[in-house]
Amino acid sequence: MHTDLVAALDIGGTKIAAALVDGRGGILVRAQRATPAQEDGDTVMRAVTDVLGDLTASPLWGRVAALGIGSAGPVDASAGTVSPVNVPGWRGYPLVERVRSAVGGLPVELIGDGVAITAAEHWQGAARGHDNALCMVVSTGVGGGLVLGGRLHPGPTGNAGHIGHISVDLDGDPCPCGSRGCVERIASGPNIARRALANGWRPGPDGDASAAAVAAAARAGDPVAVASFERAARALAAGIAATATLVEIDIAVVGGGVGKAGEVLFGPLRKALTDYATLSFVRRLEVVPAEMGTDAGLVGAAAAALTGPVKAAAAGV
Amino acid sequence: MHTDLVAALDIGGTKIAAALVDGRGGILVRAQRATPAQEDGDTVMRAVTDVLGDLTASPLWGRVAALGIGSAGPVDASAGTVSPVNVPGWRGYPLVERVRSAVGGLPVELIGDGVAITAAEHWQGAARGHDNALCMVVSTGVGGGLVLGGRLHPGPTGNAGHIGHISVDLDGDPCPCGSRGCVERIASGPNIARRALANGWRPGPDGDASAAAVAAAARAGDPVAVASFERAARALAAGIAATATLVEIDIAVVGGGVGKAGEVLFGPLRKALTDYATLSFVRRLEVVPAEMGTDAGLVGAAAAALTGPVKAAAAGV
Repeated sequence: MHTDLVAALDIGGTKIAAALVDGRGGILVRAQRATPAQEDGDTVMRAVTDVLGDLTASPLWGRVAALGIGSAGPVDASAGTVSPVNVPGWRGYPLVERVRSAVGGLPVELIGDGVAITAAEHWQGAARGHDNALCMVVSTGVGGGLVLGGRLHPGPTGNAGHIGHISVDLDGDPCPCGSRGCVERIASGPNIARRALANGWRPGPDGDASAAAVAAAARAGDPVAVASFERAARALAAGIAATATLVEIDIAVVGGGVGKAGEVLFGPLRKALTDYATLSFVRRLEVVPAEMGTDAGLVGAAAAALTGPVKAAAAGV
Repeated sequence: MHTDLVAALDIGGTKIAAALVDGRGGILVRAQRATPAQEDGDTVMRAVTDVLGDLTASPLWGRVAALGIGSAGPVDASAGTVSPVNVPGWRGYPLVERVRSAVGGLPVELIGDGVAITAAEHWQGAARGHDNALCMVVSTGVGGGLVLGGRLHPGPTGNAGHIGHISVDLDGDPCPCGSRGCVERIASGPNIARRALANGWRPGPDGDASAAAVAAAARAGDPVAVASFERAARALAAGIAATATLVEIDIAVVGGGVGKAGEVLFGPLRKALTDYATLSFVRRLEVVPAEMGTDAGLVGAAAAALTGPVKAAAAGV
C-alpha cells in the first residue's frame, strides 16, 4: 500500500481536532475532543491520544506518511514543544515526541496555529498563487503567518508572522503580552466591543455585546460602532503595512470572526492601508477576506506535513 | 585567466563608489565620484560610467565575473530600475541595463542600500554566523535589511527590511513618506536633534546642533539630550521587536552615525527591547553595534554579486 495521505492535528484552547487528509487537501476521516484546557498536562495529552486513536483505528491509517500539528502558541518547533497561552498545564510540553510515539514513529511537523492557517490559505485559499503573503486571523486574538518567496516562513521556532503582538502604538495601552499598543490590543473582537461600550454603544434587547453585534450596529449606521471598527482597521493597516515594508508581501488575507464583519471592516481597512503603505514597493498591496473555513487549521497542518522539512529531507530535497 | 573577483557599485545621494572585490571581501581597486544629485539623469549616469571606467582600466578587470549594485532606494530589482529619493533625475531609471552595457554584458545584481549593508554585516561583520538577522543604518535616514534562514532576504524588488518606514505610532507625527509615526520620524539623527532643540537643549559655542552633539551632551548628563536618545531608542526597540515577532530574528545590528553614539543609544535601546520584545520566541534577541565601516555598501554589493540569483543560476544552483 502506498503512503499518499497525511494526518493533521489542530490544537486550540477550545477543541482538539484531527483528520486524515489527501494530497489535494480533502479530509477523509475526522476526530475531535473538547480541550480540557484547565486540567493538568497529562489529561490534555490524553485528549490528543484519544483523537489520534480515532484516526489510527481507520482502515486508511496505513496510507499515512507523516503527521502535521498546528498548535495554539507559542510553540517551539526546534525543540518540539508547545506552551499554549490558554492551556496552562502545557509549558514547554514535549508534544512532538509524545505524538510521535503515539503514532508509531511517523515523521511529525509542528507549526503555530497562525502559520497553519497561512499554509492552508496558500495551498487552497485566498493566497493561492501568491509567493509573498501575510495571512491573519482576527478573532478573540490576532494571529498570522507568512509566505515568503513561495514557501511558508514558520521561522526557526514556528511562530513567525505573529502580527497580533507587534506594537503600532508605542505609548499605547498595556497589552497582556507585556508590551503596549499591540495590533491585538486594538483590533481583536473583544477590544472592538470594549471600545464601543466605553464610547457609549449599547447592545440590543438580546444583550449581545460581541464584536459581531458591534459589526451589525455599524452596518446599521451607529457612529460609535463604525468608529470602533475604523480604529481596529487603522491598527490592522499599520501592522499589515509594516509587514509589507519589512518583507515585501503583495497580499494580506484576513480571516477569523472579525474578518467576517465584511465591508464594515474591509472598507476602512483598505482606506487606512493607503495611509500607512506609502513606499513604492508596497503600494500595490491588496487585502482580501480569507477563503478557508473552520478546517483551515487542519488543512494547514496537513500542508506542513506534506511540505515540511521532515518530508523534504525524506525526499532528499 | 580565471574569474575570481567581482565589481561593486555603491550609489548614494552624496557619492558614487566602486571597487573590485575578492572572494573574501578584500577591496583591491577603488574609484569614487561625487553624486551630481541635482542634475539630470544622464549626468548622474555619467558619474557612474566614470567610476566604472576607472575599474575597467585596471589590469585586474579581466578577472571580474559579475557586478553588484547597492543603491539608495527605492529600487526595483525585478525591473532593474532605481528611483533614489535624493536623486530626482532618476525615476524608474534603468540602471541595471545601463551598467550592464557599460561593463560588456557581465551579470549585474541590484539591491537596495539597506540590503547591501546587511549582506556585508552577514558576510564579514556583526551578523556573521547568524541565520536570522536584522541589520540597520540609523543616520540621516533609517534603513535596513534582513537575513532569513541563512540567506539575504531582499524581497522581490530588493527593498525588504525597510524598517525606517514602519509605523510604531499610528497617530504620530506625519512622516515625509506619507505615513505617520515611522521609526525614522522618531529615531533618525535629524529627528533626535530636532526633538532635543524643541525641548530646550542648546548647542555649545561651536554651534553644532547635530545628533552627535546631542549624544555628547547626553554623555555629559544633559537630561533633555538623554530623553531625546531614549525616545529614539523606544522607537527603534518597537521596530526591532516588531521585526523579530514577524520573522524571528535573533540579532539586530545597528550601524550608521546614530549607531556610533554608543551606550547613550544602546543602553536605553536594550532596556526598551525588554518592554516590546515580550513573546517567548523573541526574548533572547540581542542588539549589537555594526562592525563594518564605510565600505559596508561596497562589500555588501560584492556579496550580492557573489551569491545573488544571477550567479546562483549561472552555477546551476
